[in-house]
Formats: sequence, C-alpha cells, structure tokens
Amino acid sequence: MQAYIYDTSCKSFRKGRFSFGKTFLSVSFENYDEEPKQYVIPGLIDVHMHVESSMLSPSGFSKATIPHGTTTILTDCHEISNVAGVDGLKTFMAEKTENSTFYAIPSSVPASSLELETSNASFDADEIRAFKGEPLVRALGEIMNANDLYSEKDNRTKRIIQAFRQTFPHYPVEGHCARQTGAKLDQFIASGVDSDHTEQTRESFLEKISKGMFLELQYKSFDQEIIKTIVDNPAYDGHYAFCTDDVIADVLMKEGHLDRVLRKAIAMGLSPERAIYAATWAPAVRLRLFDRGWIAPGKRADFIVLSDKDNLTIESVWVEGKKLYDRNLPYSYAVNLTIPMGLGHSIKRSPVKPEDFYLLAPNGDVKIQCPLHQTNSTMTKRHEQTCKAKDGRLVRDDLNILAEIERYGHNSPIVPIPLKNGLQGNAAICTSWAHDSHNLLVVATDEILAAKAVNTVIEKQGGICAIDDTEQIFVPLTYGGIVSVEPFDRLAEGVTKVRAFLKRHGYEATDEIMSLAVLGLPVSPELKVTDKGMVDTKLGEIVDWRIG
Amino acid sequence: MQAYIYDTSCKSFRKGRFSFGKTFLSVSFENYDEEPKQYVIPGLIDVHMHVESSMLSPSGFSKATIPHGTTTILTDCHEISNVAGVDGLKTFMAEKTENSTFYAIPSSVPASSLELETSNASFDADEIRAFKGEPLVRALGEIMNANDLYSEKDNRTKRIIQAFRQTFPHYPVEGHCARQTGAKLDQFIASGVDSDHTEQTRESFLEKISKGMFLELQYKSFDQEIIKTIVDNPAYDGHYAFCTDDVIADVLMKEGHLDRVLRKAIAMGLSPERAIYAATWAPAVRLRLFDRGWIAPGKRADFIVLSDKDNLTIESVWVEGKKLYDRNLPYSYAVNLTIPMGLGHSIKRSPVKPEDFYLLAPNGDVKIQCPLHQTNSTMTKRHEQTCKAKDGRLVRDDLNILAEIERYGHNSPIVPIPLKNGLQGNAAICTSWAHDSHNLLVVATDEILAAKAVNTVIEKQGGICAIDDTEQIFVPLTYGGIVSVEPFDRLAEGVTKVRAFLKRHGYEATDEIMSLAVLGLPVSPELKVTDKGMVDTKLGEIVDWRIG
Repeated sequence: MQAYIYDTSCKSFRKGRFSFGKTFLSVSFENYDEEPKQYVIPGLIDVHMHVESSMLSPSGFSKATIPHGTTTILTDCHEISNVAGVDGLKTFMAEKTENSTFYAIPSSVPASSLELETSNASFDADEIRAFKGEPLVRALGEIMNANDLYSEKDNRTKRIIQAFRQTFPHYPVEGHCARQTGAKLDQFIASGVDSDHTEQTRESFLEKISKGMFLELQYKSFDQEIIKTIVDNPAYDGHYAFCTDDVIADVLMKEGHLDRVLRKAIAMGLSPERAIYAATWAPAVRLRLFDRGWIAPGKRADFIVLSDKDNLTIESVWVEGKKLYDRNLPYSYAVNLTIPMGLGHSIKRSPVKPEDFYLLAPNGDVKIQCPLHQTNSTMTKRHEQTCKAKDGRLVRDDLNILAEIERYGHNSPIVPIPLKNGLQGNAAICTSWAHDSHNLLVVATDEILAAKAVNTVIEKQGGICAIDDTEQIFVPLTYGGIVSVEPFDRLAEGVTKVRAFLKRHGYEATDEIMSLAVLGLPVSPELKVTDKGMVDTKLGEIVDWRIG
Repeated sequence: MQAYIYDTSCKSFRKGRFSFGKTFLSVSFENYDEEPKQYVIPGLIDVHMHVESSMLSPSGFSKATIPHGTTTILTDCHEISNVAGVDGLKTFMAEKTENSTFYAIPSSVPASSLELETSNASFDADEIRAFKGEPLVRALGEIMNANDLYSEKDNRTKRIIQAFRQTFPHYPVEGHCARQTGAKLDQFIASGVDSDHTEQTRESFLEKISKGMFLELQYKSFDQEIIKTIVDNPAYDGHYAFCTDDVIADVLMKEGHLDRVLRKAIAMGLSPERAIYAATWAPAVRLRLFDRGWIAPGKRADFIVLSDKDNLTIESVWVEGKKLYDRNLPYSYAVNLTIPMGLGHSIKRSPVKPEDFYLLAPNGDVKIQCPLHQTNSTMTKRHEQTCKAKDGRLVRDDLNILAEIERYGHNSPIVPIPLKNGLQGNAAICTSWAHDSHNLLVVATDEILAAKAVNTVIEKQGGICAIDDTEQIFVPLTYGGIVSVEPFDRLAEGVTKVRAFLKRHGYEATDEIMSLAVLGLPVSPELKVTDKGMVDTKLGEIVDWRIG
C-alpha cells in the first residue's frame, strides 16, 4: 500500500509504502514522485470507557465503533458487574469482538454500599482475585472513593487495590480524581492510582501531569484553556491520551466515537499529527500494549485509511490486516449475540400499581426536601418547599414523582420521593439502564403513567419506556436490563426518540439520557434516589423527604 | 527539600519543594522568591549494559556507580553466564545491591558454538525457562545472530525468543542490530527484537526509530550527525535512551558512568533537560518500570542532587530516600562479597610450559595467515605473509604469539597462532577476562614470558597478568576469573597499570583492554582465536594458520 504513512517516532506523515499480514511486515519511507491520495494511521485506542454507556455489550460496541476507527478499547464494565457480578463480567469477556477489547475490573461495585442501594453484586478483594490469569484484564477500573485512600483504616478500596497489585503487578490503576489537589492529590497518586479522566482546569492539568498522572481527556474536557496548554507544549505528548468515557448510542451514531474527540481537538487547534499520537501510541504505552499504536514491523496491522487528515475522513478500517469497514460498501451492525443464561430474564419484580407511587403525607402543611434536577450538571441540589397534603397525599403541583424500584427478586417496598424540575405535561419514563445499580428508575408526572411505564419495562424484561398522552416509546434492553441485542442503528434510533421525548417534556440537560440515569447514583451530590429511598450523598444516609 | 525540581511532564526545571520517604510523598511547584542553589533530578537508569565489562559483580558495580547517579540498571550478564551458566547468573541475582539491579537473560551463550569454542555453559529454551518467576528479570539479552532470525529453519535464537515470550510476556527483547536495513531490518524487528544499541548513522537512526525500534545510544554513538538529528526534533524523545553498554573499570573511575554519556550529549548541544529525560523516564518506560524515573508521588525516591545542571555536578545520590553518596563525605567502595562456592576456584587448568606456545612449522618457507590487530576497531583483518621456519618452529620476527587456553577442566591441547601488530618489546599478557568464553587469552612476544603470565593467572585463580623485563602487574579477578572482589578503586588502579603496560608495548586501540579481550570473540570479523585454534568468523570454521 502506498500512502502518507503516520510516523509515530516524529509525529508526522511521510510518503511511504508498506505491506502487511496480521502484523506489519514491511515499511519504507520513500521520496517517490507521485503524491499519495490517502493517509494511513494506526487504529485508535480508547484508554478509558464503559461499553454499557452505549447500551451495548462488547461485540455490539465493536460493530458500532469499527466504522469510527476504534480498534482497541479498555472498557471498565462497571454496569454489567453491578447487574451480574463476576460471572456477568466474565460473560462479557467471553464475547467475540472484531476489535481488541480489554477490560478494567471495576473497583466500586456497588457505587455506594448495600446499606444505601440494592445492587446485585458486591466486589471486594476476592472478586478481584477471581480474575487471576484472565488475559484480557489490563487495568483496575476507576477508583472513585478518594476518602478511602486518605483513611488510615482498612477499607474496601484499599483491599481492592492491594489485591489487584498482587494479581496483576504490571497493569495500571485508573482514577477518577475530580477536584483533588496539593497533598491530598499526592496521597491519591501515592496509593497507586495514577490516571484521571475527569474535567480539568489549566491548574489541575498542570499539577496532575507534573505529578506523574496520565491524563485522559474526553470530549467535554476540551476548552480553549486546556487545548492551549497542550498546543503550547508538545513535551506533554505521551503523558496524556484521548478517551470517550461515556458515549450514548445516538451520539455515537450521529457524531462518532474517539474520532469525534480527535476532530474536536483538531478543530480547536491541535495538529492532527499530535492528536493522532494521543489516541494511538500514548494510550498503547499506558495500557502496556507495545504491540500496537504504530505502523511498524511486528506491530498488529490495525490501521485506518483516511482521505483527509484534517477532518479525519475515514475511508476504511483494518484490524489484523483485514478490512472490516469500507466507506463505499454496505456495513451491517448486526451481531450474533445470544443472551447468556440468567441475563435474559433479569427483571425480577412483580407488577406495580399506581398507589405504589403516592407520596403519602399527613394532611395540612408539609415541609419537604427533594432533589432539584440541574440542567447543566448531573449533580442535583437540595430543594425545600412547603406543600399542602390532602387525603393523606402530597399535592404535588409541578413536582414529579421519582422512584427506583428494586428489581433483583426481593420485591422490596417502593419508596417514591418528589423531584423538582423534572418532566412537564402528562408523562412518565422508566429505565432499567439506571446507573450504577440498574434498578427501575421512574420519573413521572402521574401515578397511572408511572405504573404503566414500569410494568412495561418489567414485562419486556428491560429497556426504556416513555409514555405520554400521544405516544409510547420503548427501547428494549433485554440483556441484563442494560444492553440491547438489536442492531446498533435500531438502538440509536430508539434512543433518539427517547431524547426527543425528554426534551419535549421540558427535561433539559447537557445529556438528557445520562442525566436521567444518574438520578439514582448516590455518590455525587446532593440528593439522589435509590430503591431504599432518598439519599443525602454528603451524609451517606437515607433521609426522609418529609421534614416537617 | 527545596530545589529546582526536574519536571518530567514538560522536560524542564521548576522551583519546588518535596518531601519523601521510600517513595515521594509530596511535590509542589511554587513561585517562592529565593533562588534554589540545587537541582534535583531522578536517579539515572541504564537501559543496556553488562556489569562484568567493568570486572565487577552487581554489588561492586552498584558501589562503583552510585557516586555517578546510576540508581537502576538492566544488566545483560553474558559473561558470568558463559563462565557459570544458569547457576552463575542466579548467584549474581542473589547479590544484595544498593541500586536496583535488573537482569536481561543472555541470549547467546556461547557467542558462537561449542564446535568453535569451549564455554562452560550453553543456553537454549530450557535455560530461559529456568528463570521463570525470577522477579529481577526484565528483558531478554541482546540478540546478536540476525541470520537465525532470517532463517526459515528452527534454531536456537528462535527457540530462545519463543521461550522468553512465553515465560515473560511483558518484557522486551534487546537487539544488537548493526548494519541491518530495509526488508531485513523489518524482519529483524518483526521477530520481536525491538531495540538496538550499536553505533548509528543518521540514516540508520531514522530508519530504525521510525520502524518502532527503541534506540539505545552510548558514549561512542554520539557524533555531530546523530546529536543534530536528536536536537532538531524533540518528537523523538521517549523513543531513545542513553546507555553505557561496556565501561572498563579505569574509565568508570576517571570519567564516570551514565553521567559521562549525558555530559557528552550536553557538551555536543543537547539540552540538559532532554538529556535527563533520555536517562530517566524514557528508559523507565522501556523497562516497564513505571515506579521510577520521575520526581513524583508514589515513585521511588531515587534522585540526584546537582549543584550545576549543565555539567551535571553531582552533590549527592539518594536511593529509596536514603543518601548513599555525598560529595563532601568519604565514600567507601568496599563490598562484603563472599565468592560463591565453585566460583572461587574456577581456573581448572594444569600449569603450561613455554613449549606449549611454539608455533610449529616444517623448516623452510611457510605461508601463513593470521589476525591483524587493528587500532581503530575490535575487528581484526586477515594478514598473510611468507615466513621462514627453523628447527621446526616459525621464525616470528615481529609476529606475536596469540592463544586461548581452555580452563574449564578439560586440559585441552593448546593451539597457539601468530598475531600481527600485537605487543612490541619483550612482553606477555594473559587475561582470564576474555570475551565471551573467558578462557585464558595470552598475547606474547616470548614463549617463556607467555607461560609465566598464564601460570600466574592459573595459580592466582583468575586475573590479568602483564610481564615484561622490568615489572610484573597482576590484577586479581578471582570471582569466576572475570570479577574482582577488591574495592573498586584498587581494581581501577590495577586496570590503569595494565592499560599503561599495553600502550608502552605499542598496543594501540580505541580501548586497549577491551580490544585485547575480544581477540578471542569469534563472532566479529575476521580471524580470531579460541581454545580450539584460529577461527575464520565468516566461514564459522577452525582454520590453520599455515596455508602453504
């Protein structure tokens, strides 16, 4: 093949020829006269992400992202682990994928504790050791509980890091390190957690990278300040990589995957040559995958042919020397996926009734507290107001009903709470894709619609159901209640409709789908809901919404 | 500690403070007013070298190089492996050292074959597997036999690489890749051998680095062309490192170790900041040692305090937070080393007689071929001349006697050969430090002196003995016949005298000591000597020096 070949050693394109089998066998850079019409770059490597964020399992995710040039991923499968434990994750690992899928063992299952929420699994040191010898493991998934690292006492996070170090001495520990700084940050890093993929300021970027952290920059991480910091100093190359973290199915379909992150970086002023380095060789080294990320002899023949390097226009994508995507040929997203035993009927819950969603309160004035959904953040704020109660029920006015219904076979009592700034009009939405425990999260303006939405999700064994006066949308997620087994394009179409539904009913957010799903994630501020009721995440306690 | 701290992420010095235990616990970069008087950089990491080249074992070598800031090495202990096999190398590994000593398992023991030379060990796949689980192994030692890699047939080199890959999947394979280019080079690299530490031209540097090779540059590698290539393009940083390969004891004493390589690079125009990167973080990544090479939390507190960054003036050297060298305090090179059983009496040879060195030939004209020692290369050329023979012996005139006397207990017959351009005057030198089989190499202008030198080395159980009419020098190397157990400064003094002796007797070379020792290494052109006789290294055969 004759092309401008990406030369990793000097981060530049050079005219060259190469031939390949499963690995590259021969590469030469030459000064022949003809101007090549194509550019060849290594396949993209996504150093930090979660396949279930796209409502896909590894094989479906691979199919969905090959056209975008993603040939290697490290996925922290936090969601399937909450739903189905060690076995669930091992079932994912056993899936055949067209890309190279490596795994980070999730470190926070459940995200909080079994006192605050019902997940279907709990990981401690033994669960980490259960993956010993698993060749696809390449990292410990993001450590989120910084306080555990600062504590002098024995705790789950410390036990898990220690067990991982013993079981996989060569692999990195991923971090989630928002807002840590100074001596606290030093302690965080010294615990062995040396990456961060959260949003950065210029100050946090400089502090973390100079302290040896490997920084993972995602789409939302790029502002002019961060881009300028990188652009101004190529010395940082190799110490950061691009990643996707969470990409919802419809966004993936319309805008792309890791290629979308690169395009944004390039559009904001980073050279394509340096952007490519941050999505190929830099993440390869981070993942200790020295067999890829470079167009060179002995490396895997994973590469992308571009017709335009500035817009990253992808013509074809090759894995181990085999062309898996060609822009000019039809492409099928279908995968041959059989849902493993036990994960096809995972919504173990009897049908619910409208009465289950009554917000009960003594008649008269009631002072309440409840989550206030914010449009620019997935954190909620505390909302307080005084309401009336009549017939033993709260008069809700514009307040929504918010509940998470336990679905792992305990038929636990339902504990609905109010939600401020939720849906408008007559509407309900229920999703079994509800981070991180994936119980049945419901937001509704009406008890009858709430029950209807929940019962649909129970009956269909997982998915998202949105109902209003004019339509009913259903996106099936029948694999563990969180993953679609439909072809990706159909899934993306369904998610697009759900997003439109949320917007139509006044639910504003940076990402409506993700915002909804994390109303039940009790680790970010301030008030969240779980199957146990309302959680004050700062106190780490279940609290009543009726405060007077 | 307050200093200009080396910030690896941006390859620059910044004012800062840090505190440390065994690992760094806290680092901050600050804009305080005071100008620090010192610079702090990570301990130097030597990515490719051989401790026995300095006639030292790991503990003695560590003592000798700590004052030069070398805190981590990867040593390919090719010599002790030839002398004492797997057990010998494991004995090295068991030595306590003050630095971090990691090991590359040598891949070419013996250098040629047991048909051409008698070594005391032979490594194949089983010997590689014998190191399974050995935590100090970090690489397979340099693959020298490129032809084995190009061959379609099964051979020792291929078996060894495969066994290493299976036993140590995470670690690199070191290469010795002089003069390979084009498709041959591609095949060399595709075999899994992805580094090179031989001398480079600008062309070879660019070709190898762009093909994904990690380049290891040593003192003799730097010419203006190579330095300019690096200086002009900082993108290469991270894809090459500095190394020492072989440093003879007296040079180490007088000029330094890896610090000497850095000083040369800096003097030739590379910035200190980039030179430091190439001896700290770049080799750390190459060796998959992500716990060092950076002044940062969680990394080992291995660091050097400099008073001057441009001359790398070393004030103190710290390992795991402990000060091991202080320029202003006395320093002792002594190590507490007990020679392991079997390696203290390793010269198993009966005394020799002057007659053993007679160059026997039929009376009259004799046409001969013999090695011609070259002054600018360790390769020899073929020398042919016609001599007289009298009383059944060659009339040597200015020809020396060259022989290697087998010393592993076989008492094999001695096969002396002539040498052109050897010593002048009445002199003999015998060394049991004679690469790579370490039999007793002798160069002499006189048979009586030859026997005397050899018998001294036998009697003292290893070392270098140089004799002329006025003096007798002896450097004891009683550990396996190749390593000194004396304090390093005494050893260096002895080697200095041997070097002076060689010079005085007209033995010219870039490095007189190394040049002498490789007269018996039958893998580089053109005629060499082994205990079996004269080897034509191109033919790979024993040949007679009498050709007519």
